[in-house]
Amino acid sequence: MMLYVENLKKIINRIVSSDKIAVVSHVSPDGDAVGSSLALAIALRNSGKTVDVYLEDGVPAVYSFLNASDTVLNEWPGEEYNLAIALDAGDLDRLGKSVQVFNSAQVRINIDHHITNTNFGQYNYVDINASSTGEVIYKLIGMLELELNKEIAECLYVAIATDTGGFRYGNTTSNSMLAAAQLLRHDIEVSEITRRIFELTTEKKVRLLGAAISSLEIAAEGRAALMYLSNEERERLGAVSEDFEGIVNIARNIAGVEVAAFLVERQPKEFKVNFRSNSYVDVSEIAVRHGGGGHKRAAGCTITGIPLIEAMEKLKKELLEAL
Amino acid sequence: MMLYVENLKKIINRIVSSDKIAVVSHVSPDGDAVGSSLALAIALRNSGKTVDVYLEDGVPAVYSFLNASDTVLNEWPGEEYNLAIALDAGDLDRLGKSVQVFNSAQVRINIDHHITNTNFGQYNYVDINASSTGEVIYKLIGMLELELNKEIAECLYVAIATDTGGFRYGNTTSNSMLAAAQLLRHDIEVSEITRRIFELTTEKKVRLLGAAISSLEIAAEGRAALMYLSNEERERLGAVSEDFEGIVNIARNIAGVEVAAFLVERQPKEFKVNFRSNSYVDVSEIAVRHGGGGHKRAAGCTITGIPLIEAMEKLKKELLEAL
Repeated sequence: MMLYVENLKKIINRIVSSDKIAVVSHVSPDGDAVGSSLALAIALRNSGKTVDVYLEDGVPAVYSFLNASDTVLNEWPGEEYNLAIALDAGDLDRLGKSVQVFNSAQVRINIDHHITNTNFGQYNYVDINASSTGEVIYKLIGMLELELNKEIAECLYVAIATDTGGFRYGNTTSNSMLAAAQLLRHDIEVSEITRRIFELTTEKKVRLLGAAISSLEIAAEGRAALMYLSNEERERLGAVSEDFEGIVNIARNIAGVEVAAFLVERQPKEFKVNFRSNSYVDVSEIAVRHGGGGHKRAAGCTITGIPLIEAMEKLKKELLEAL
Repeated sequence: MMLYVENLKKIINRIVSSDKIAVVSHVSPDGDAVGSSLALAIALRNSGKTVDVYLEDGVPAVYSFLNASDTVLNEWPGEEYNLAIALDAGDLDRLGKSVQVFNSAQVRINIDHHITNTNFGQYNYVDINASSTGEVIYKLIGMLELELNKEIAECLYVAIATDTGGFRYGNTTSNSMLAAAQLLRHDIEVSEITRRIFELTTEKKVRLLGAAISSLEIAAEGRAALMYLSNEERERLGAVSEDFEGIVNIARNIAGVEVAAFLVERQPKEFKVNFRSNSYVDVSEIAVRHGGGGHKRAAGCTITGIPLIEAMEKLKKELLEAL
């Protein structure tokens, strides 16, 4: 822990003494990647520094309302930086092409909250007790004695809210709530932000949810729930990978259900399967058997070579065995 | 504001000096009514007082996991109390039959957060800046210098989380978050509580959602969304009023939609209609035209005497006019 504090002092000094800074984060950026990057960039810019933010995949539309999101770069023109700060990335691979920006800088700092972080920076500030990188950046902005205004508060709120599922996941701590309480002092519009990041959907996603529900099958006396989307239906709805996100949860959240699966036929006889469990079934074991992986309560795999009905029967059997 | 503080001192003294206390709250109790009542009761009981909680409609199943929920009474056996405290009730009518308990007590205190509160108590502590009565009780427990343990923290968390929609509605303030941050210090299981009160659903509700989605019709170039459930479908699913709650929101949350309506045919040619809007359409105007009412962004009415297709066409026309 001493090393951690020692590093932190050096990190503060390095940031304070650098005039031209690059902030980079991971591919497929989520609210934490976007929010923490923009918050740090705005705060440092307001203190007179030149700061560029690099996200290989740009800012997803859902976060484009955030201040300064239009300043995010996705390609590196070869610009040189005194300092590069990587946010929310567990390892260098996660940075995608932005790793070039990171590696080219004179000084490289790694700031994150993932327990799997490889400490790939020259300096590393990895707080595994933080809910999100946004929560770390909130503290860092305080330590840097930078001004925290409404624009920055909005970015940090989005970062923390995204990674805690709107203060609902198990990683929501008293400190996450305290940070949010301070951010709310800046008159950010919680209901509007929440609506944008959690509630707003599209007609396509709603129809996809409807199609999945129409396939709902309850098994094992209510302890297993399975849903599918056939290739035909998927094509008709024009649904792509990101549209399926979270749909399995509607099955998982049925009272009494312990384990849920959602099969999407991506092309004839090729299924992407999402598993969720609630309390005791280790769904990663099922996923690994099919060459997939994940966590105990959330896992996924791909099944090929059999038609839809057979795939459903096979999975149902495996869920029953796991229960 | 001086009166408010003066009252508060008297309220504290009255509570401290009473040994036998009744806590009452409103009919159809929500998480705030149940959570704040149980929290206050447990805290007072732990300080050695005899406390009975009265809720005419009992504790809804979703909140029955809360500590001491099994001690809630729904009928008054004629017991006498030194003090009765009404929580989360805007007026005496809201107490239902529990008003008898309240009126029979020697001293009557009214604690609430609704702006419409009629100050019906001998002493009134109405904090309209609080998100919830739970937030008021959190402060009160502090002022009474009562111990706040994990059981009480869970009750207050449920109270505040329910009324703020899981810290998502516009009434979520910095103080609500600060209170939550303090409650989380007692190791309450946020993800489990959140799952119970916000995410857990039933197979019936999921199938109902699916049926509603399959009827989804987008009109006015994406600015209006309508859904219905025919009497036949409703009977087939065995759906009752409370099952429909919130379903209209899936239509309201489609990007671009300003106004949404959900028609449920309760018997042939009788429709209960729910309206929601996002920014500018006053749906209460439409509802009032049909003898209903509500707020600008959420309203309802009943339409009778015409078949489903005609009712849908009629409403679509009215939504188009309102846009």
